[in-house]
Amino acid sequence: MSTTPPRQLHLNVNILHSGFVPSAWRLPDSDPAAFTDVQHYVRVARIAEAGKLDAVFLADSAAIIDQIHFRPITALEPTVLLAAIAAATTRIGLIGTASTSYNEPYNIARRFATLDHVSGGRAGWNVVTTADLPSARNFGRDSVPDHAQRYARADEFTTVVKALWDSWEDDAFLGDKAGGRFVDAGKVHPVEHRGEHFAVHGPLNLPRSPQGYPVLVQAGGSADGRELAARHAEAVFSASQSFEEALDYARGLKARAQALGRGPEAVRVLPGLTTIIGATEAQARRRRDELVDGIPWDYSLTRLAGTLGIAPERLKLDQGLPDDLPLPAGGNGNHTFFRATLARGRGLTVRQLIRELAGGGGHRVIVGTPEQIADDIAHWFRHGAADGFNLMPDALPDGLQDFVDGVVPILQRRGLFRSEYAGHTLREHFGLARPPGRGAPHRAAA
Amino acid sequence: MSTTPPRQLHLNVNILHSGFVPSAWRLPDSDPAAFTDVQHYVRVARIAEAGKLDAVFLADSAAIIDQIHFRPITALEPTVLLAAIAAATTRIGLIGTASTSYNEPYNIARRFATLDHVSGGRAGWNVVTTADLPSARNFGRDSVPDHAQRYARADEFTTVVKALWDSWEDDAFLGDKAGGRFVDAGKVHPVEHRGEHFAVHGPLNLPRSPQGYPVLVQAGGSADGRELAARHAEAVFSASQSFEEALDYARGLKARAQALGRGPEAVRVLPGLTTIIGATEAQARRRRDELVDGIPWDYSLTRLAGTLGIAPERLKLDQGLPDDLPLPAGGNGNHTFFRATLARGRGLTVRQLIRELAGGGGHRVIVGTPEQIADDIAHWFRHGAADGFNLMPDALPDGLQDFVDGVVPILQRRGLFRSEYAGHTLREHFGLARPPGRGAPHRAAA
Repeated sequence: MSTTPPRQLHLNVNILHSGFVPSAWRLPDSDPAAFTDVQHYVRVARIAEAGKLDAVFLADSAAIIDQIHFRPITALEPTVLLAAIAAATTRIGLIGTASTSYNEPYNIARRFATLDHVSGGRAGWNVVTTADLPSARNFGRDSVPDHAQRYARADEFTTVVKALWDSWEDDAFLGDKAGGRFVDAGKVHPVEHRGEHFAVHGPLNLPRSPQGYPVLVQAGGSADGRELAARHAEAVFSASQSFEEALDYARGLKARAQALGRGPEAVRVLPGLTTIIGATEAQARRRRDELVDGIPWDYSLTRLAGTLGIAPERLKLDQGLPDDLPLPAGGNGNHTFFRATLARGRGLTVRQLIRELAGGGGHRVIVGTPEQIADDIAHWFRHGAADGFNLMPDALPDGLQDFVDGVVPILQRRGLFRSEYAGHTLREHFGLARPPGRGAPHRAAA
Repeated sequence: MSTTPPRQLHLNVNILHSGFVPSAWRLPDSDPAAFTDVQHYVRVARIAEAGKLDAVFLADSAAIIDQIHFRPITALEPTVLLAAIAAATTRIGLIGTASTSYNEPYNIARRFATLDHVSGGRAGWNVVTTADLPSARNFGRDSVPDHAQRYARADEFTTVVKALWDSWEDDAFLGDKAGGRFVDAGKVHPVEHRGEHFAVHGPLNLPRSPQGYPVLVQAGGSADGRELAARHAEAVFSASQSFEEALDYARGLKARAQALGRGPEAVRVLPGLTTIIGATEAQARRRRDELVDGIPWDYSLTRLAGTLGIAPERLKLDQGLPDDLPLPAGGNGNHTFFRATLARGRGLTVRQLIRELAGGGGHRVIVGTPEQIADDIAHWFRHGAADGFNLMPDALPDGLQDFVDGVVPILQRRGLFRSEYAGHTLREHFGLARPPGRGAPHRAAA
C-alpha cells in the first residue's frame, strides 16, 4: 500500500549579484566585484545546493535600468552564467530569465534546451515581457510596446517554444552503429507555425531534453500576466505583501489553470521573500539598520517615489507620506506594492518607512530570527498562500548561508522541507510531471 | 636587449560532435550520443588544452541542415556549451559561432562578453551570415536574404557589437565601499547607433570584459566575406585546398586589412584541415577506408553532387566525373572546392574520388603519419600560406588525441609551437593586442 507523501515546500533563491538590499555590496564581507564574478555565483549556488533548495533563479534585463553610480546591476547573461554554474553543481535547479519581446522563439528554445542537456535536466525558463524603455531602445524601438501587445506576443512566443521543444519524439534518436541509422527522421516533426508575430518552420535542431522540456516559470502580477501564467507556467514567482492577498492570488491562479484544462498540481506558487536574519530579533534589526544606513537617502527616496508614482520632491524624510496619493499607472503587481507601502507608512515618517521597507523593491521583507522566519514560511505554506518561496536574501552569499544554516534545519525538523534530494531534475524537485511529448503512448482510460 | 620571438603557429580545433568524417560516430570507440553530451565536449577540450592548442571552435546552425537519418548535426547552442567547457578548463580559448542574420546585436554582444567574463578572457565570436533556407524558415522568412544584403547587415551588426563592447571604459567600475560609489557613470557611454538595420542606444549592461572584447573570428570565402574579414576579423577560418591558393588568400586578406588602416599583425589566417593519422601511411589509409566505408554511398553522392552543383543522378559510382561541369552558383569558397574536386577527380572513378575526399566537406584532408602532417603544416606556415590551422579531426576525441600525441611534439621540437601557454587569454595565445577601448590614454608619438 502506498500513502500520499506529505506536501513539501519548494524554495528557490534569487541570486541577484550581491543581494537584494541595494547596499549589500558595501558590507564588510561583500566583494563589490561579485556581480561579474562567476565564482561568486558558483559559491552561492553551492550553498543553495548544500541547503537542498529547489533552484537558483537569475533575474535579467537587457539594459541598465538602475542607478549604477550607487549599486550593482544585472550584468552577466543568465543562460551562459547558468551553464557555468551547472558544471560546478549536480542537483540544484537553474532558472534563467529571458524576454519574449527582444528574442526569437527558435533561439530561446534552443538555448534553454541546451542548458537542460548540459545540466542533466535542471533548466527552467522564466518568461518575461520586459516593460522598460531603456531595453526597448536597445532593440530598435523608441517606446515600449503596450502591455496587451507584449503579452499577446509572449503567449505566441511561449506556444512556439513548447512546440519546438516537442518537435523530436523522445525515442527519435537511434545511434544504431551497425545499421547506420542515426535518427529516425520520421519521429522529428516540423512545427509549421504561422501566427501574428512569428513564422517558424522547425523542427528544433536538438533532440528532446532530459526534462522533456525546461520548467516554465513566470512572474504574473497583472491580469494579462496571470492569464499567461495560468496557460503556461509551472512555477510562478509572485509578489504578495500580505497573507490574504497571497492566498487570494494562489487560489485564483490555480482555479484559472484548472479552468484551462490543466491539473490541480500543474502550478507552484512561490512568492518573493527578502529575509534579514539575526540570532535575536534585535540583531536582525541591527543588520537591517546597517544595510539601510548604507543606502543614500536620495536613492531610497527616488525608489519609494517610483513605487508611489510621484516625483521624489514630494517626499520629505522627516514628514509622513502625502495624504492624496493616487493609484499609480501599471498593473496589479504595482498596485499591490503601492497599497502595502501606504498601509505600512501609517504613522511613520518617510525616513522610518524607508527603514521598515529595508530598501525593498516590491517584495515582502521579514526581519527576524530563524525561528520567526520558519514560522512565517510554515504559516503561509500550511494554509495554501504559498507552495514555497522565491528567496531574495538581503546579501549574498552570507544572507543565504544564514538561511541554510538557520531556517532550513527548522523546516526539515518540522517535516516541511526535504533533507535530501529525491530526484535529479528540477521537475523532480518541484514534483512536476515530465511532459509526455509527441508520439508518447497515451494511457488507456481507467 | 630584446630579440623578436620566433613567429609561432596557432592551432584551433573544430570540435564538431563526433568528428568531421560523416561516419565518425560509427567507429568502435565512438559514442553515438556524443553530439548532445557535455562530457564529450569537455573531454575533447581537455585534450586540446593538454596539447597547448589555442582554442576550441564550435560551428553552428539554427536549423537541421544535414541528413539526420544518417549522421549527427550541430545541436547544442555554442555559447551555453562553451560556458560549461570554460568551467572545466583553464587556458584553452573558446570560439563560438553566432549568426548576424538571426540575432540582435545587443544580445550577441552581451552573451559573448559574458562568456569572456565567465572564462577569464578566453572567448571568441565567429561571425557568420547563415546562407541556408531551413534557417531562414525558422526566423519568419520564406527565402534566404541575398548575399550582399546579409553581408551589409553583418558589417553593421559587428560594428554595433564592438561599440557596445567598448561602451564601458576599462576603469569605469569603482567598487568604492567607503564612498558608496559603485561605478563612475561618466565612464559608461551610450552608443546611440542608428543605421540601416539597427537602432541601438546602449550602453551594454556589462562592464568591459577581460580581453577588452572577445576575439573576432570570421570565415570569409566570398568577396563580401573577405571584405568583412579585412574590416573586423582578428582570426580567419579559411578554406584553401592548395598551397598556392592559400598563399594568395593570406596575402590578399592581409594587404586589404592594412589598406583599411589595420596593422600587419592584425589578422591570423587559419585554413581548415582535416587530418586522418596513422603510425604508417598504410595505417592512415586503412583508417580512411574504414571511415569512408561507413558512409552510405547515396549520402556521399548527394554531397559530391552538391559540391559540383549538379543532380546526384548525374554521378555514376564506377565512371569518371561528367566532362561538362559548369561552375556552380555561390561564392569563391564554393568555386575553390569545386575546382579542387575536379582536379582531384582526374583519372578516378566517382567511387575512387569519394574515397580520396574522405567525406570532406570543403576543407583539405591529409591522410598520413604524424611526421608527414607536421611537414605539411610547417611548409604552409613557414612560407606564409597559413598562420596556423583550424583542425578538423576525422573523429573525436581520438583523432585529436592522435594529433596531440603525434603531431604536436614534432612541431614543438621544431620550435614552431608552444610547449606551454605564455598567457591566460585567447588574445595572448593568438598574440593579438588588447583593444585599448574608450578613454584609454593614447601613447605619445615617438
